[in-house]
Amino acid sequence: MKKLIGVIGGASVSEDIYRLAQDVGREIAQAGAVLVCGGRKGVMEAASRGAHEAGGLVVGILPGASPQEANPFVDIPIVTNMGLARNAIVVQTAQAVVAVDGSYGTLSELAFALQLGKPIVGLQTWEVDARIYRAQTPTEAVQWAVQAIGENTL
Amino acid sequence: MKKLIGVIGGASVSEDIYRLAQDVGREIAQAGAVLVCGGRKGVMEAASRGAHEAGGLVVGILPGASPQEANPFVDIPIVTNMGLARNAIVVQTAQAVVAVDGSYGTLSELAFALQLGKPIVGLQTWEVDARIYRAQTPTEAVQWAVQAIGENTL
Amino acid sequence: MKKLIGVIGGASVSEDIYRLAQDVGREIAQAGAVLVCGGRKGVMEAASRGAHEAGGLVVGILPGASPQEANPFVDIPIVTNMGLARNAIVVQTAQAVVAVDGSYGTLSELAFALQLGKPIVGLQTWEVDARIYRAQTPTEAVQWAVQAIGENTL
Amino acid sequence: MKKLIGVIGGASVSEDIYRLAQDVGREIAQAGAVLVCGGRKGVMEAASRGAHEAGGLVVGILPGASPQEANPFVDIPIVTNMGLARNAIVVQTAQAVVAVDGSYGTLSELAFALQLGKPIVGLQTWEVDARIYRAQTPTEAVQWAVQAIGENTL
Repeated sequence: MKKLIGVIGGASVSEDIYRLAQDVGREIAQAGAVLVCGGRKGVMEAASRGAHEAGGLVVGILPGASPQEANPFVDIPIVTNMGLARNAIVVQTAQAVVAVDGSYGTLSELAFALQLGKPIVGLQTWEVDARIYRAQTPTEAVQWAVQAIGENTL
Repeated sequence: MKKLIGVIGGASVSEDIYRLAQDVGREIAQAGAVLVCGGRKGVMEAASRGAHEAGGLVVGILPGASPQEANPFVDIPIVTNMGLARNAIVVQTAQAVVAVDGSYGTLSELAFALQLGKPIVGLQTWEVDARIYRAQTPTEAVQWAVQAIGENTL
Repeated sequence: MKKLIGVIGGASVSEDIYRLAQDVGREIAQAGAVLVCGGRKGVMEAASRGAHEAGGLVVGILPGASPQEANPFVDIPIVTNMGLARNAIVVQTAQAVVAVDGSYGTLSELAFALQLGKPIVGLQTWEVDARIYRAQTPTEAVQWAVQAIGENTL
Repeated sequence: MKKLIGVIGGASVSEDIYRLAQDVGREIAQAGAVLVCGGRKGVMEAASRGAHEAGGLVVGILPGASPQEANPFVDIPIVTNMGLARNAIVVQTAQAVVAVDGSYGTLSELAFALQLGKPIVGLQTWEVDARIYRAQTPTEAVQWAVQAIGENTL
């Protein structure tokens, strides 16, 4: 089974954050992991694009009833039709979570990840708990996530 | 249709927090509103007890597959079998939310309530957003919630 | 805890089926049980109306994001925002199920009820399994459901 | 975006049904489509094995809280922790559905697929609706599903 790394973050972002999330997606693909995200715009789209352009596989766990709400870089759209509650599925499915920026939706995902004890690394995101490792760069964030999954598997 | 007030908070609590949540439940019943909560222990049980003992109606939106996981003060156990994702249903169903203490589960519910624009009042809980009104007493908290629902309805 | 009896059936119905479902709702209220249903039109509305007019309590487990999609006889609207998947919550929450007429949504609920081993009684509905008891009248159906819950509890 | 074909069927099966489902999985992979299923045993495992051994990609939408409940041929385990309600996600995610044998869970999925208007083809499964196309062989079933998706896309 492949490593599944989740990327969480807001649907509306600045250009800087978009580039940051795109780099995270690219690093995930280059590490040979599958990207799991909410499948929509903003950080989700940027990470999907980065992973897709580097030849990686992108799973988008969508809130609505149609695969057409996926961004164009999603390979596997999962159609939950559960609205906000799909955030729980994103976090449960990811073996580690990279949080980039983000608003209330991201906060709910961080809360779920903390509750489930998932490894979490943050880039310019909510500072609500000391267990969120604060990385300086996309490279560091993804390396940390990959290593955390490896240690969890042992 | 009756007013539905949600109470969110952790499953393990101190005696002080238990009493605080029990007072919140009693005030909700005395205001003629229905209590909506996660149906389990800690803050949920305390609020359920307070509402129940004051003659109120208690709806418990349970995470598991059995109504038997409800605390003994729940009148209507809703059996979601959705785990963490049931937190979204608690918040969507409540017209206003009273947060008491709480850990990561409560944080996820606050995040959902903020995202949905629900009125939120907090007693000794997470301070993650200025939109969470900070009440000093259970009476003030429930009065604030009742009034917020009234204004939303207009 | 009160008895919770589920009524399942289609959103579009003939006048005869509407009257039949209304009688089922009234009998449920007169038996002192809470009515659980999908909260919308057709059989759901008819049963809600029957229970409401007889002084009973009506829980509507709604598929969408707003309590406003509930029919006017629902006392407690549960806002799942889960679409079709809310059918599982209706069946899990009910201690016994009365099926009246119905189309594919009802078929999914019958399937879930069969899988969970819930007592099921049918009035002019899908004939897919011998475990669905076929009643001739609303009175017989509700008496059967009430008795089945009593036996399950032992 | 790739074609996503769902395979639904029971968790306990005869050897004949296992082989039939395995052939369906292999045909799906050979058609270049992604297999979506419930990720567990029986028909789900057989189809996953067939697709996996033919080099295809397998998405398993799991009912529980752990990826470890996936059968060994699942590449992408989606961890819903929603129990029966995950059946809705399997059907919503698939662009066409192949039903093989099956019990009540499969019946719920057929009901959802009928309600959503998804193309459905059946091999030795429930005969509840004339809209379920009855194929004679795995090859015919998968060819029918692939063509149905193509026509839906237009």
